[in-house]
Amino acid sequence: MEIPRFAGVPTFMRLPLLGLSDTALEQVDIAILGVPWDGGTTNRPGPRHGPRQLRDLSTMIRPRHPVTGLNPFAVRNVADLGDSPVNPADIMDTLDKVCAFIGALKARNIAPLSAGGDHLVSYPILKALGADQPLGMVHFDAHTDLFDSYFNGYRYTHGTPFRRAIEDGYLDPKRVVQIGIRGTMYDGEDVEWGLAQGVRIIRMEEVEDRGIDAVMAEARKIVGNQPTYVSFDIDSIDPAFAPGTGTPEIGGFTSREAQRMVRALDGLNLIGADLVEVSPPFDPSGGTAWLGISIMFELLCVLATSPATRNPNNK
Amino acid sequence: MEIPRFAGVPTFMRLPLLGLSDTALEQVDIAILGVPWDGGTTNRPGPRHGPRQLRDLSTMIRPRHPVTGLNPFAVRNVADLGDSPVNPADIMDTLDKVCAFIGALKARNIAPLSAGGDHLVSYPILKALGADQPLGMVHFDAHTDLFDSYFNGYRYTHGTPFRRAIEDGYLDPKRVVQIGIRGTMYDGEDVEWGLAQGVRIIRMEEVEDRGIDAVMAEARKIVGNQPTYVSFDIDSIDPAFAPGTGTPEIGGFTSREAQRMVRALDGLNLIGADLVEVSPPFDPSGGTAWLGISIMFELLCVLATSPATRNPNNK
Amino acid sequence: MEIPRFAGVPTFMRLPLLGLSDTALEQVDIAILGVPWDGGTTNRPGPRHGPRQLRDLSTMIRPRHPVTGLNPFAVRNVADLGDSPVNPADIMDTLDKVCAFIGALKARNIAPLSAGGDHLVSYPILKALGADQPLGMVHFDAHTDLFDSYFNGYRYTHGTPFRRAIEDGYLDPKRVVQIGIRGTMYDGEDVEWGLAQGVRIIRMEEVEDRGIDAVMAEARKIVGNQPTYVSFDIDSIDPAFAPGTGTPEIGGFTSREAQRMVRALDGLNLIGADLVEVSPPFDPSGGTAWLGISIMFELLCVLATSPATRNPNNK
Amino acid sequence: MEIPRFAGVPTFMRLPLLGLSDTALEQVDIAILGVPWDGGTTNRPGPRHGPRQLRDLSTMIRPRHPVTGLNPFAVRNVADLGDSPVNPADIMDTLDKVCAFIGALKARNIAPLSAGGDHLVSYPILKALGADQPLGMVHFDAHTDLFDSYFNGYRYTHGTPFRRAIEDGYLDPKRVVQIGIRGTMYDGEDVEWGLAQGVRIIRMEEVEDRGIDAVMAEARKIVGNQPTYVSFDIDSIDPAFAPGTGTPEIGGFTSREAQRMVRALDGLNLIGADLVEVSPPFDPSGGTAWLGISIMFELLCVLATSPATRNPNNK
Amino acid sequence: MEIPRFAGVPTFMRLPLLGLSDTALEQVDIAILGVPWDGGTTNRPGPRHGPRQLRDLSTMIRPRHPVTGLNPFAVRNVADLGDSPVNPADIMDTLDKVCAFIGALKARNIAPLSAGGDHLVSYPILKALGADQPLGMVHFDAHTDLFDSYFNGYRYTHGTPFRRAIEDGYLDPKRVVQIGIRGTMYDGEDVEWGLAQGVRIIRMEEVEDRGIDAVMAEARKIVGNQPTYVSFDIDSIDPAFAPGTGTPEIGGFTSREAQRMVRALDGLNLIGADLVEVSPPFDPSGGTAWLGISIMFELLCVLATSPATRNPNNK
Amino acid sequence: MEIPRFAGVPTFMRLPLLGLSDTALEQVDIAILGVPWDGGTTNRPGPRHGPRQLRDLSTMIRPRHPVTGLNPFAVRNVADLGDSPVNPADIMDTLDKVCAFIGALKARNIAPLSAGGDHLVSYPILKALGADQPLGMVHFDAHTDLFDSYFNGYRYTHGTPFRRAIEDGYLDPKRVVQIGIRGTMYDGEDVEWGLAQGVRIIRMEEVEDRGIDAVMAEARKIVGNQPTYVSFDIDSIDPAFAPGTGTPEIGGFTSREAQRMVRALDGLNLIGADLVEVSPPFDPSGGTAWLGISIMFELLCVLATSPATRNPNNK
Repeated sequence: MEIPRFAGVPTFMRLPLLGLSDTALEQVDIAILGVPWDGGTTNRPGPRHGPRQLRDLSTMIRPRHPVTGLNPFAVRNVADLGDSPVNPADIMDTLDKVCAFIGALKARNIAPLSAGGDHLVSYPILKALGADQPLGMVHFDAHTDLFDSYFNGYRYTHGTPFRRAIEDGYLDPKRVVQIGIRGTMYDGEDVEWGLAQGVRIIRMEEVEDRGIDAVMAEARKIVGNQPTYVSFDIDSIDPAFAPGTGTPEIGGFTSREAQRMVRALDGLNLIGADLVEVSPPFDPSGGTAWLGISIMFELLCVLATSPATRNPNNK
Repeated sequence: MEIPRFAGVPTFMRLPLLGLSDTALEQVDIAILGVPWDGGTTNRPGPRHGPRQLRDLSTMIRPRHPVTGLNPFAVRNVADLGDSPVNPADIMDTLDKVCAFIGALKARNIAPLSAGGDHLVSYPILKALGADQPLGMVHFDAHTDLFDSYFNGYRYTHGTPFRRAIEDGYLDPKRVVQIGIRGTMYDGEDVEWGLAQGVRIIRMEEVEDRGIDAVMAEARKIVGNQPTYVSFDIDSIDPAFAPGTGTPEIGGFTSREAQRMVRALDGLNLIGADLVEVSPPFDPSGGTAWLGISIMFELLCVLATSPATRNPNNK
Repeated sequence: MEIPRFAGVPTFMRLPLLGLSDTALEQVDIAILGVPWDGGTTNRPGPRHGPRQLRDLSTMIRPRHPVTGLNPFAVRNVADLGDSPVNPADIMDTLDKVCAFIGALKARNIAPLSAGGDHLVSYPILKALGADQPLGMVHFDAHTDLFDSYFNGYRYTHGTPFRRAIEDGYLDPKRVVQIGIRGTMYDGEDVEWGLAQGVRIIRMEEVEDRGIDAVMAEARKIVGNQPTYVSFDIDSIDPAFAPGTGTPEIGGFTSREAQRMVRALDGLNLIGADLVEVSPPFDPSGGTAWLGISIMFELLCVLATSPATRNPNNK
Repeated sequence: MEIPRFAGVPTFMRLPLLGLSDTALEQVDIAILGVPWDGGTTNRPGPRHGPRQLRDLSTMIRPRHPVTGLNPFAVRNVADLGDSPVNPADIMDTLDKVCAFIGALKARNIAPLSAGGDHLVSYPILKALGADQPLGMVHFDAHTDLFDSYFNGYRYTHGTPFRRAIEDGYLDPKRVVQIGIRGTMYDGEDVEWGLAQGVRIIRMEEVEDRGIDAVMAEARKIVGNQPTYVSFDIDSIDPAFAPGTGTPEIGGFTSREAQRMVRALDGLNLIGADLVEVSPPFDPSGGTAWLGISIMFELLCVLATSPATRNPNNK
Repeated sequence: MEIPRFAGVPTFMRLPLLGLSDTALEQVDIAILGVPWDGGTTNRPGPRHGPRQLRDLSTMIRPRHPVTGLNPFAVRNVADLGDSPVNPADIMDTLDKVCAFIGALKARNIAPLSAGGDHLVSYPILKALGADQPLGMVHFDAHTDLFDSYFNGYRYTHGTPFRRAIEDGYLDPKRVVQIGIRGTMYDGEDVEWGLAQGVRIIRMEEVEDRGIDAVMAEARKIVGNQPTYVSFDIDSIDPAFAPGTGTPEIGGFTSREAQRMVRALDGLNLIGADLVEVSPPFDPSGGTAWLGISIMFELLCVLATSPATRNPNNK
Repeated sequence: MEIPRFAGVPTFMRLPLLGLSDTALEQVDIAILGVPWDGGTTNRPGPRHGPRQLRDLSTMIRPRHPVTGLNPFAVRNVADLGDSPVNPADIMDTLDKVCAFIGALKARNIAPLSAGGDHLVSYPILKALGADQPLGMVHFDAHTDLFDSYFNGYRYTHGTPFRRAIEDGYLDPKRVVQIGIRGTMYDGEDVEWGLAQGVRIIRMEEVEDRGIDAVMAEARKIVGNQPTYVSFDIDSIDPAFAPGTGTPEIGGFTSREAQRMVRALDGLNLIGADLVEVSPPFDPSGGTAWLGISIMFELLCVLATSPATRNPNNK
């Protein structure tokens, strides 16, 4: 409350900015980072600008959680790791670069909380985090992102990351739950494939009928106490709340529902999370980014209480 | 998934564009068309630009319904009929032109799904469709549009179409239900007149108390299995979701409620529908138009399963 | 319905504009006024422009309440008193000026309905209205505004008005209820202090669990039938509905909930009210102001039925 | 400098607001008024909202001219006359109402400075002012507005006012000069007709080649020292400076050129002026309105030094 | 003037929409087409949405040129060829697709007037048009687009098209002139390379000192009477006029200068042209697209009078 | 060209971020810093958000000047010093804090290039830099900022900094030149006072008549070769180019004129500079900030060639 919230160079939540070679990194439990890239976008680009706008708005975040009183910065060492290297001109090169960056964090026992970028960025993150064993995942989204390919065979787009991650063994489909799926469909092959692998797809209409609490109880049971990733696509929330995204679908979650869902992840064995598809050109007002960073704070709080995010270097 | 959704000249939902003299018209069951006109607007104009913005956003619509799996384009022949002729400088001339255009469709057994334009455009549509027998109507709106006149005697404005249509015998008031009415009132004469004719007016507060399902069950009963029209004013939805309209009223429907209400029309004897009052100058972002065209897709799906919309020419 | 709603010089709800020296003031029961000032803002300024945008949108308000049918202008004499004097360059001078202006109204038995301005403007209003006896207050807000000071000792900001008003005896903390509190916290000292004084703080999560009706029943009990003030911060409503404000917090009320809460104040012994923190630069579209003025109409209706707002000069 | 410029109910340039029945009107030399109407618009409506936004921005105008030092309020009595009556639902009724309102001012020897509204509003103004003898006119515009009719015979649109005014004898075409004409053409019949009547049309390219000073010297010669009206369409200025208008044409004047042109009217026998086609929905930022009201201040200054604008009642 | 300009499905300038297999194509001299692609963008994407917004605004274009009176549609057969196929997920595939599309037009003796898309789309167009002999080019831009590569070796971006086209022999560097170059530089290697090849680079400062007419006279001499292409990057114009672009540089051309420059190309042996880098997400108002399509009309006029654009099939 | 320009935490022009206690500071010649404060604003606040938006846009700046080829980072050590401490709740405390911060730089022989904030921030900067001897100043602005006081005696606002600085002896009025002054005036006392002190006030009209080069030659003569400060108010530029500011005046400079004027300062004995009044809430697009930071790069270049800005510690 001494420095005005609009002042200063904006790092995520006013955290210190560290590089991979900083010695202070050894003490870090959780890294917040950006992946400023949207090369996987099939329709309206823009999420490459997401990390910067999220950082800008993030300086309005205060340190304690309003309901639990948790101060995540008090129980975990958290740092802003800057942005992962990317290549706007090359998809595969970018996937390698992001995977390597997350791998370097993992090698230091640092859990990543990433800000996209489009949803394809989840793929190299999962590739790094799930290299040793397939992960569970709680996935909030309007879309399954389980498509096989676009434009006659292009297999790496923001509609395919989880198909690839399941095929490549980074995700255990039986421990994957997708919540909030909705919107008009192509042929439905994505859903059929997912169901055949054992993915649990909870459409928005089912959420509405059963209620958030029941759905989240089921989600917790699906992922169990094994290592689990959380991927939060901002387009799971209704475009009235989150207009700044490239593939909006009407009929989405309210912000209160989104908060309640993320809070319900408390106590799971979480090893990382992302918030993707915030697209500043479609919301220059920053409202979507404010919603996004507020959700990232909720994600940070459940990461901070996860047993997996205490770096063994920190005692 | 082969042609990017942002490419190409935008017709409604990427449908073929046909004129009244196209021979292909004979095979058409349902026509989507625009009525680019707002000469009935008493306050903030703009809906004349609605059809173009709705077409622009409509290329993001995919072919299958997310809940039922219905592909309306597979069960009905649907075409974009372009825009109805209008006259920005003459109200009565426009009413005649729109009535003639819809009449030409009716003569070919084609059911119209129209994009306004302000709400006065419903009047000439009803005049054409209800020429032979009075129709039932399910009407979603913040306003009754049952006023008698404005500005000392002007009887054709966007606040009067259903008063005129009832007076002229195109609507059967006992089979008219209005849902979502709210907002500050003048003297309430519109409501009193409507009730006296037998119109069922369900205010937003009643919807909230009883729930969407109960209200829609009643609405179905009111219109029965006789020919019924659906008129959906985008201002029935809350301005947080639909800011791009001329007469917003706070306290409106969410997008999920709107979807649920339209889906509840499934199986009725629907002979046409409209979506009106999308005003692009008040939402250049296109968010309101995206909501509008998404609702139009829902309307298309219930039209596609209506017994009334199979053109006898198509076997 | 004779003069278009977009025409004319905009006074609040098209009311006559009176000055403190107008003799017509003697007949006035309720004054609507602006306090165009945001000198208490610690982050993003802008509410100084609120009164003008609220007046602009207010000409779309019609005279009768949609549910009760009440015409507040028929049961009370209401006038636009213009804007209170303020000083953009001096906080304390402004507090004095606003207190004097409200005091002048109080001296004439006129109840004020004020449009902010930032939330610090509630302090001089309470100072004037609560000079004789501590008031009760129903306070809708995302924040407690019970902080002690900012920036190393600055005690008059938009985060401190109710701390000051309680300390100075203008509010009776045991008759103060705060509804909708949420958002990340600093150290929580504001909440602790408030609870220690006896303020009832109802967090958003509690509202969600118990429902609007139960919460408002409790609020009515807390303030009882003694003189009570209502302070409505627009940021109590979710930023999807009210983006035009300086300190938004996700997870807020919908517009329907806001209407329901204010309507539940009917019959209380209300002596004044305010609507604050509408910030036009953050919503040039006017959507937030339209929501704000619609809430002000609801506040006007419950003021109009309060026993306290019939000016004894008017018989 | 005592009352902040953003405070208070906005009248034009903070002038007193008078009605036609105010006795103070007798002392008025120049009336500033709005004509909130765009029923003559053939493409993109919106100017009906112009007067309100112009008034809003006008409170940033200070009293003295920066170059001449003239304080127009010191040498002439100026008042805000509010908005002329209009009828959004009837073109001819509106033309009558505006003509009557301006006629009432003329009967009191008050010179009108009107804020549109679309350009058709110039026609009833000229009808009132030119009833006794045809007027000269200096007309700044991208378009000639000399068309015969639109949409198969509609003769009263914002593209026809000066054709009608010449035909009806309110303008003397030999004393009419149009400056800044440009943009793609239909068939050019408007230009041919104008030239045949003796109108001097100075296209933008000619202005660029000869310079502002030479063109304005010619314009002064054309209108001479007989009674002359000034009509300033904001679309004469380039859309980079004035995006908020319905029929923009690239390649327009800069704001500096516009100021220089209006200042060059000083000393002419001016009997009224208008500034039209400011369309707030196409520029919610208010930048176009700020440019418009700044030009209106320049117009006010040349009206204030015109011999024709000293009301004989004022001595 | 019969159909309102805001009505109907928007093709370029209301032209008929033809496909490559339409037989009517044989009669076409000039094709207007879109290339909805921005895969070459190194910073802020968005031009993929350019063609649609340009078509939308293009319906405000009238048929005749304001200065020359030329009606290009009267002297040449012009059609809208829709959008070239592209692949948002693959740069090289897109270059092939665009080259093939333009090649198909060239095979039919149709001159292309293309709407980008980012500037990399000029490369496959030049590859198709310059396959037989190197072309001359008049290039309006803030940037040379003569860079070798980005991001460690990526050779196909919107900063490299003309380096590639010169290297590959599609452009004759001695007949290339670049006008309006400005803005901060990396190391200047692009300029040095261009000068070494014989490209004439006319910086903005030189234009300002010598004047448009002198510069254009030189440009005409450089390209001579051999086949010449025109590439117009909207960022050559100042961002005050053209904010909707990805790499703005202050200090650019005014719209009047841009018109004057394109008009000065009249009579050259022009075989095609493009207008690129209009990015709707950075200007949802459409102002930049209006400027862009207005420049495209000017380009169309100089193409229409070029000896090269009369299709031999048309006699 | 390896790291995309939209990536990373944005410091000014991607410079290293240093604090006052960094030892690397010893090697710094020029500091770029923000002053995020607008407590001196009398009308529309917002410039407190300027430094952050300027930093955001600044990552699009490349290292070399387009005309001179100068790389200022090669000839001077430049760093981002972050934001000066400020106090949103106290004007005098802020003036002290900014003066102390600039004083700390001066003590280290570092020349400041500051980004406002409103224009009052120039006062404490001049107080620090001119403490030993009165400075000369080249001042680009629409307003003189030589007012005595506002709101009945408030002497520290963004309209008074140079009156105070002259009164207090930090500026030598005979070596002060103001360029671009325009806009409606109060009583003109500010101009009279300035002229009486010997300030040279060059109104916009004089610039237009004499040309930029002549005016700047005179300005150079006025300040001579003694230590000189440059203050650039973004509102000196026309609002078409710079809409994001609080007190716009039409008729301002173009961006090309602004560049030419700053470049004409080359070789003067410059000891510091500022760019003020960029107000992001009034231009969320960032266009004004892009213009502002581009001007700051021009200022940096003339600072870099000033004899005064080589820190004696650097050899």
